[in-house]
Amino acid sequence: MLKKYQKMVNESIPMTRYMEWSIQTLSSTHISTISQLSPNINVHGTGFAGSIYAAAMATGWTLLKCWYDHHQFDAELVAAEATIKYKCPVTSDFECKAILDQRTPQYEKLTERLSNLRSCGFSQEVEIICDAKVCAILTIQFVFKC
Amino acid sequence: MLKKYQKMVNESIPMTRYMEWSIQTLSSTHISTISQLSPNINVHGTGFAGSIYAAAMATGWTLLKCWYDHHQFDAELVAAEATIKYKCPVTSDFECKAILDQRTPQYEKLTERLSNLRSCGFSQEVEIICDAKVCAILTIQFVFKC
Repeated sequence: MLKKYQKMVNESIPMTRYMEWSIQTLSSTHISTISQLSPNINVHGTGFAGSIYAAAMATGWTLLKCWYDHHQFDAELVAAEATIKYKCPVTSDFECKAILDQRTPQYEKLTERLSNLRSCGFSQEVEIICDAKVCAILTIQFVFKC
Repeated sequence: MLKKYQKMVNESIPMTRYMEWSIQTLSSTHISTISQLSPNINVHGTGFAGSIYAAAMATGWTLLKCWYDHHQFDAELVAAEATIKYKCPVTSDFECKAILDQRTPQYEKLTERLSNLRSCGFSQEVEIICDAKVCAILTIQFVFKC
């Protein structure tokens, strides 16, 4: 499954190839990806804010895509809005990690609405981790469009 | 001046080369850049949310870098936080456009603090435009670190 999604994302979002973004682990509720620092540096030689965001966005998107494929929902997944907070510089290859929490009211609402072929928003957090520290947190407001 | 900044950004942020991001006009208060759609597509064949963000972040950063070079302030410019709102799909090569408004209280505060070698935050908006429509708006909270 991991290889299928790696191929799908690399083919459909060519920037993920350039970023050397690769999936380490994937299920319908968990994802971890690694991106190489070298193609993603900025003027300070640390992670470029735009690359960090793009790697985390691809990670969050892949998790939710995998989740809705798994549940065989028929929807289009788009990002409506996102906020990223940068806490400290990314100084080496970095991990993006996300968990789809199934014990929340928004998850219940999502499954109920998609089951009735109705569009629904969903907020997903992605952590950007480097040298065992959370360097940034991205919160994406996705919309599943039916 | 435009060529100097194009070269500087392309060399220090390699992702901008991949994105085919290029500066169209630049002064210490205005910037317009164009990015090509083809390296920046997503699974729908429209602009990838991560690429749109990265192109707009590079645009906002270049404008403020140009501004503080022009005023010969000595500071390091970093992004602390950013929010992007996606309004409609990017379906062709896209422009990122930003204006540094000098008639605001935050501008007065910025020049006063940098003149006294004190760090300061600054909020900068960047519009992403495609086919004469604003497709997304990025608001970046920068910090000038002294």
